[in-house]
Order: sequence, then structure tokens, then C-alpha cells
Amino acid sequence: MSLHPVTVSESKDTTFIEHLAVLGVGLIGGSLAASLKKRDCVKHVSGYGRSQANLTLASRLGLIDKVSNSVEEAVRGADVVLIASPIGAIGELLDEIRQHAPKKAIVTDVGSAKAGVIAIAESALGDRFPLFVPGHPVAGSERSGASAADPELFVDHWAVLTPLNETDPDALRIVRRMWEAAGAKVKMMTPEAHDRLLAMISHLPHATAYGLTMQLARQDGRDDLFDLAAGGFLDITRIASSDPVMWRDIFIDNRDEVLSLIAEHKNVLSELEALIETRDLAGLEGWCAEAKRIRDRLAKHVSDQEL
Amino acid sequence: MSLHPVTVSESKDTTFIEHLAVLGVGLIGGSLAASLKKRDCVKHVSGYGRSQANLTLASRLGLIDKVSNSVEEAVRGADVVLIASPIGAIGELLDEIRQHAPKKAIVTDVGSAKAGVIAIAESALGDRFPLFVPGHPVAGSERSGASAADPELFVDHWAVLTPLNETDPDALRIVRRMWEAAGAKVKMMTPEAHDRLLAMISHLPHATAYGLTMQLARQDGRDDLFDLAAGGFLDITRIASSDPVMWRDIFIDNRDEVLSLIAEHKNVLSELEALIETRDLAGLEGWCAEAKRIRDRLAKHVSDQEL
Repeated sequence: MSLHPVTVSESKDTTFIEHLAVLGVGLIGGSLAASLKKRDCVKHVSGYGRSQANLTLASRLGLIDKVSNSVEEAVRGADVVLIASPIGAIGELLDEIRQHAPKKAIVTDVGSAKAGVIAIAESALGDRFPLFVPGHPVAGSERSGASAADPELFVDHWAVLTPLNETDPDALRIVRRMWEAAGAKVKMMTPEAHDRLLAMISHLPHATAYGLTMQLARQDGRDDLFDLAAGGFLDITRIASSDPVMWRDIFIDNRDEVLSLIAEHKNVLSELEALIETRDLAGLEGWCAEAKRIRDRLAKHVSDQEL
Repeated sequence: MSLHPVTVSESKDTTFIEHLAVLGVGLIGGSLAASLKKRDCVKHVSGYGRSQANLTLASRLGLIDKVSNSVEEAVRGADVVLIASPIGAIGELLDEIRQHAPKKAIVTDVGSAKAGVIAIAESALGDRFPLFVPGHPVAGSERSGASAADPELFVDHWAVLTPLNETDPDALRIVRRMWEAAGAKVKMMTPEAHDRLLAMISHLPHATAYGLTMQLARQDGRDDLFDLAAGGFLDITRIASSDPVMWRDIFIDNRDEVLSLIAEHKNVLSELEALIETRDLAGLEGWCAEAKRIRDRLAKHVSDQEL
């Protein structure tokens, strides 16, 4: 947890959203709703999702004010609609939003890949597309569902927004304010830069963690493996415990970048293989030292940011 | 840190080693020396290593009783000689041990790969080989050097011993007692099983962490990458901050298993690529779900062990 106090700055005493509709009240949707409610930024939160049990829990936990039985019911009268479902469900949700949300409703999402979502939103929302603000809070955990929601989840984490030329400046301002109110730092970039970057820092590492875990299961001597994997291996593969449906969708939605980086990763491993194969001691030491230098610099960058 | 009290059991009040010589007073050698001294298991610890500054620090921290200026000086009169240097230095050290240590001295090591070390020891130690007990404490950290030593490092971690048919039972008993006194749980296995297992749970993950880090450095948009890598990426690549010389030696020493598992890992990643490439939603979800099931079972195994 962060040592810093929550930054609520300009939004401290102001309710700036009358009615927030959250579609998908899981870790991210539930945490943002809880965060905005806790900071008095929103008057009313309606929630809709596929699992009635999860919605009931979200309501009992106070993440949302009202359980809605349909998208139509959830978005009726909403000022801001937050789509926090797995990416695969977004097209259908956007269709319903276009039909049932107020004309002036701002729509935003939290998907881990942006180019695909933007293409879907452009076609689904039509002339409402300028009020769609593509977003992605780079925070999370391997846990999922309303039970994992935490109003402090976004504090001191980055939220990336990838607005387009046609994005309405006021819509962008409100969505930015929403993430800042939740304690996040906001960064703008193009959808393409976002997708490449996230593939590198998150999607590829998930692929390698899944891969390491699958590979472990195929080895002989399971008991000894499980005993000894207690240390580092368990840490390294933590993200392989993430939600499979969410990751299926992310891998597909950011398909080109993910495939490009997995191929690149195999090539990097081939460099290492060649150094080991040829017993190139100097080359191997240099390669490991270069990786250490980069990792140490990254760690320093992070600790400098936290000062 | 562990919640368990240190288990010193039978060795509580007993000094069972008169003189321990530690060759390489880094994280592992320094921690074991400190642990045995703290628990009154050893009367005198001499230490030798390449870096005078590190040895001086080890002495000032009380990890060792005496800084020796040569291997000869360190092992003279020793009952147990612990080799805790990078694997690459072991051959030379064993030569000196054969020449200068008492005939009855037990020799043990902490190398992360066993088959290679055993072959070197067999040829270097000659008729003293039965007193060599190959060992490997599966504990560590990305930190290195005497400054990182911790007498509690091994508590509740596994120490693997890979004795051979010709290994002297009394030597094995003393080395086992030494690790148990330091709080470790001891497991016996063949050198081959150890090397395959460690390649899977440690050496391959190091390769992927190094690979991810090298790959990060080659992407465009360094500032944004470093900002956003603050979360999961930093955790996943933690082990890429490990000592490059140590890892150069491990990769070379466990060359066959490491190469075999890197090749296997690339094949596993190719399975994932094919599922993404063909947009096989069901297959992809099943693959991620299977990995999650294994990782969750591993996490449960670990938490059951800790009860």
C-alpha cells in the first residue's frame, strides 16, 4: 500500500457526477465506484453485470447504490457510463448504451487494449462516438469480482486515456477528473502507443507466466516440484492466477501486438540459448549484466517516483 | 518473514562443528555462517573470498570470526569446508582443499546445479570424494554479498542434498544437521532430478525475467514504459537484478537442462501463439484456465505447507 495521502484536490467537496452507471461491477468497476462514492464525487451509482450473485455482493458491500436488472435500466438517466466488463462483451453493451442512455451521457471504458475497443465503439455509437473516452487504469491484481474491490486500488497508479481527434474536450475533462479523484495519475497517449506498451509490460508477462505454469505441470516429479516452487516460482507466476476470460479477451483484442511481442520474446530467448550453447562466458555475463542494469534502473525510476 | 519459531531442536545447546571454513562469504555463505554462529553450532568460522572489502565487511558484521588471506589459510584445521562461491570457481577451490584441508574434512557446496559440480569434485578430490556432500539451499534473493546476509535466510526453506552411493553417511549426517540447525527443511534427491527441477522452477524463470527486461529496453517510448512498468512488470522481473556472474555460471553449469527447458518454453509459447493467431476463443480460455488451476493449486500447496 502507498504511504501517500489520497489526493482528492479540486474534487474534494464536489459531486461532479449525478448518476454513474457501472456495467461490470468487478475488481475495476467496483473499485472505481467505491472510490468515487467514498470521496463524495458521485450521487448515485447503478450497477449491472452478468452475475446476480456478484451484483448482490457489490450492493451489500456498498460499491453500488442500485442493482439493475438490465443494461437499459442501469444506463437510464446516467451522466457517465463506465464499461468495466471483459472486452468481449463491449460491442453488445455499446449497442444498448446507444439505444437507452441519455444523448449527453459520457461513455468510458477500462479495457486493457484500446485500438480494438475504439473501432467497435466508433461503429456501435455512431454520432455519439465523440462522447466516448477510451481509458485504461493500469492497476489491478490477480483477484477478480466485487469481493476484491478496493476504493484505494487506483491511488498513485497510472490511468491512461487515449482520446481521439474527435473526442469531446468536456467528456475528456470529466473522465480525467474521475480518475484523478480516485487517486490515479493520468497519462494521455495514442491508442497504438498504449497497446504496444501494455503488450510489453503486461500482456507478454502474462503470456510468459501462463507458459511457465503450463510447463511446470508437464514435468515429472510433481511433489518435489510443488515443494520447491514455494519460493520464487510462486511469485513469478502470480499473474497466472488472473481471470481466464478476461485474459482470453485481452490476448485476442490486442492480438497483433501480443503476437509480435511473443515472437520477439522467443527471439530474445534464442539469443540467450546461443550464448549458453556456445559457452560464451563473456557474452553471457554481459547479457545478464545488461538486463540487471536495466532492471535496477527501472527499480530506481519507481522509487524516485514514489518520493 | 515466517511466522514460525526457529527450529533448532537437537542442535540447540551443541556445538557440532569446531571449525567451519567458508569459501565465498556472500549472501548464502555469509547467511549460513551467521545462522550457525547465532545458534552456537560452530566454534570458529574462517572466511575467504576474492573481494577483500566484502571479507572485511563480513568480519565487521560478525558473520565470520577470521578473515583468511588464502584458501590454504582458511581451510587449515577445518572440520567442514563450505564452498559458497560462484560455480565457475569451484574446480580451483577443490584443488586447494585437497592439498590443504585435513584429510577428514567434510566438504560441501551450495551450487544451483549439481551434476557438473559433482563431476568436478570427483576428479578434483580423488579419494576424498566420499567426504563431499553436494548441496543446494533453495533460498536466496536478488541481492548478493555479505551485506545481504541474514541468519534467518534459510528458515522454513528447503535445502536439497544430492548424495551419491559413495557419499560417507556421517558426512551426510553432519551436513544435514547443519542445514536443519539453520532452520531449513532437508530433501534428498538425485543430482539429475535436482538439476531438471531447478531448471524448471528457477533457471528458466531467470531466463524469462532477463529476456523480458532486455526486450523492454529495446522498445520505443522509454519514459512511458518506465512509468507504467512500475507495477507488475517490476515484480515479475525482480530476479533479473540477480548477480550476472552467478547466473552466467548457473546457465553454463546446468546447460543441458536449461537449454532443454528454454526450447520447451518457446514451444509452449508457440501453443499460445497458435490459439491467438487462429482466434480460438474456447481453446484460449481453456489454456488460461488450466494455467490458473495449476497456479492456484500451487498457491494452496504452499499455504498448506505453512500451516
